[in-house]
Amino acid sequence: MSVTAAKGFTAAGIAAGIKENGNPDLALVVNTGPRRAAAGVFTSNRVKAAPVLWSEQVLKGGAVTAVVLNSGGANACTGPKGFQDTHATAEKVAEVLEGHSAGEVAVASTGLIGVLLPMDKLLPGIGTAAAELSAHGGEKAAIAIKTTDTVHKTSVVTKDGWTVGGMAKGAGMLAPGLATMLVVLTTDADLDAATLDKALRAATRTTFDRVDSDGCMSTNDTVLLLASGAAEVAPEYAEFAEAVRAVCDDLGQQLIRDAEGASKDIRIEVVNAASEDDAVEVGRSIARNNLLKCAIHGEDPNWGRVLSAIGTTKAAFDPDQLNVAINGVWVCKNGSVGEDRDLVDMRYREVRITADLAAGSAEPVVIWANDLTADYVHENSAYSS
Amino acid sequence: MSVTAAKGFTAAGIAAGIKENGNPDLALVVNTGPRRAAAGVFTSNRVKAAPVLWSEQVLKGGAVTAVVLNSGGANACTGPKGFQDTHATAEKVAEVLEGHSAGEVAVASTGLIGVLLPMDKLLPGIGTAAAELSAHGGEKAAIAIKTTDTVHKTSVVTKDGWTVGGMAKGAGMLAPGLATMLVVLTTDADLDAATLDKALRAATRTTFDRVDSDGCMSTNDTVLLLASGAAEVAPEYAEFAEAVRAVCDDLGQQLIRDAEGASKDIRIEVVNAASEDDAVEVGRSIARNNLLKCAIHGEDPNWGRVLSAIGTTKAAFDPDQLNVAINGVWVCKNGSVGEDRDLVDMRYREVRITADLAAGSAEPVVIWANDLTADYVHENSAYSS
Repeated sequence: MSVTAAKGFTAAGIAAGIKENGNPDLALVVNTGPRRAAAGVFTSNRVKAAPVLWSEQVLKGGAVTAVVLNSGGANACTGPKGFQDTHATAEKVAEVLEGHSAGEVAVASTGLIGVLLPMDKLLPGIGTAAAELSAHGGEKAAIAIKTTDTVHKTSVVTKDGWTVGGMAKGAGMLAPGLATMLVVLTTDADLDAATLDKALRAATRTTFDRVDSDGCMSTNDTVLLLASGAAEVAPEYAEFAEAVRAVCDDLGQQLIRDAEGASKDIRIEVVNAASEDDAVEVGRSIARNNLLKCAIHGEDPNWGRVLSAIGTTKAAFDPDQLNVAINGVWVCKNGSVGEDRDLVDMRYREVRITADLAAGSAEPVVIWANDLTADYVHENSAYSS
Repeated sequence: MSVTAAKGFTAAGIAAGIKENGNPDLALVVNTGPRRAAAGVFTSNRVKAAPVLWSEQVLKGGAVTAVVLNSGGANACTGPKGFQDTHATAEKVAEVLEGHSAGEVAVASTGLIGVLLPMDKLLPGIGTAAAELSAHGGEKAAIAIKTTDTVHKTSVVTKDGWTVGGMAKGAGMLAPGLATMLVVLTTDADLDAATLDKALRAATRTTFDRVDSDGCMSTNDTVLLLASGAAEVAPEYAEFAEAVRAVCDDLGQQLIRDAEGASKDIRIEVVNAASEDDAVEVGRSIARNNLLKCAIHGEDPNWGRVLSAIGTTKAAFDPDQLNVAINGVWVCKNGSVGEDRDLVDMRYREVRITADLAAGSAEPVVIWANDLTADYVHENSAYSS
């Protein structure tokens, strides 16, 4: 169902020939109204891809009529020509949809950095995609934005008369600074751009922003939320925000479960921090510790590596009061040896680490990460070749 | 020659039985004077091993008569008992050497975090080591501090009538915040503790502090510099500082070349930064990018991953003016596609990355890193088992 679960949207996904292997590589999502409100969050990487620079400007207007997305090339680090290509892509979409302005067409790209897109394939593909637009095209659109993803990712929450749905892609270079890879959410709720923006920022802050698969922040991260108003319902903000959060959370989980080469999903919960910022800093430090990620891969409850990661942060804590549980066993108590590590059962894909900072009463924070595997090394040592 | 290259030092390395496989695991280095000046730098990890907490106190006095080092256990995250064990170790050294104070005995440990040391093996081992102390014992001491190191590391610089020598160990959890793993340097120059401290801090800041093998900062990093004065020569500060820097640089290079699982040594030079701090931040960000480390392993000159790493920093730069060379080929110019990437020859172990920030005129900064390999994953997923 994906981006067409909500009323007022059509979508398509086709193979334009951008990918040499002939797989689908171009998606088009169109808001058929009546409303065309939109919000977006983008990578905080200072090296931003051309489509990010373009779409940031588009979103400032608070209105998006269409989103065109391609896999097979990130169009990042491609200079003035790359930006011209993004502009031409938006113009082409406006042209084939008729009566639309390129200034309301968001563009997103994903794939290898530093390569120009084959515009001779991409531009004709837009015409093909427009001809296939359908209120049932969400699934095909989700498939067309995959790169190293092994499955496509979609999620839908339906409430009383209105719906939030979406699609996502992402499997590597997955440590969002503000958003993650490419995500398009749609809703038929009748809400303005400012409300969408508030709900989207709140949702991404606690979902995609807390996914840290490999510590590498992309140049292309884009999350868009489009509202058509077609349901003719204006839900309460809190209910709407929770629906957006739920879809983001579900998509974020799907990203982690499909992360390149991963064999374990690591749920890191930081409790009793002095502040939420402290908890996030500690969780992220644990999430990015390569030695710990290797240990988890080896099903080794090596809590010393958790403590050494905590110790590199500026968070408030006393080293002699730290407690760490792995899969419910408190292997570290008061900064020292706790329960028998042999009690920890790590056979399953999900591994839960709880870090108790004993420093305050901030709400628990959860960061999701993956293990580090030989498959990750293999996949990423051969990606551009 | 190691720590006994300089006059006024004896050393020993023995197998005390701390390691279950019977390999050497205990080293003793003794300053026989006439002077016993010393300086030390330690990990900036806030979770510090018991021997670090002990030795930091010892070094405050500016005098060290002996250093006892063990492999086979880090004595980190071991609570009050761990600290008592370190104290007992220093007392035992003072006892067997006769006429010395435990307050002038530095202790260093390395190995698995979170396990108490077998004191029933370690304490008798100190007596055995003391009986083997010799002015030719430096090599054996260097061997006894190895953990996953495949070779022992020593270095010596001899000047006009005086010498600086040393030994180091370290192969994983190698991203010093202030120092790296275990290093003992000795000199027979006749210098006081304050001069040693100044020279040591200056040397580590541009050598060990710029080695970043795997982004993981240890709980046990310790670098000591001991002066015996036995050469009866007080060299000029600049000449002495340069000798210390040269030995630190050489040992740092040996650590990188022996890093766990590594197949490539990556020399990252950041040029034209606005400040030295900017250059270090950018170099370290590149050094820690797992995707780039995988690409280098695959001999893939994937410069887009260099730019995405630079983009996560706060350093001054304009994305459209960044230039990147890999092994001398400027594959990225002005933030976009530069020379043909197929010109890059990556067959050799050393890979040189130059990042030109085009933002200022700070002196170039070099950070050394390693690639990320399946062997690293294998070694570190099985280490504690």
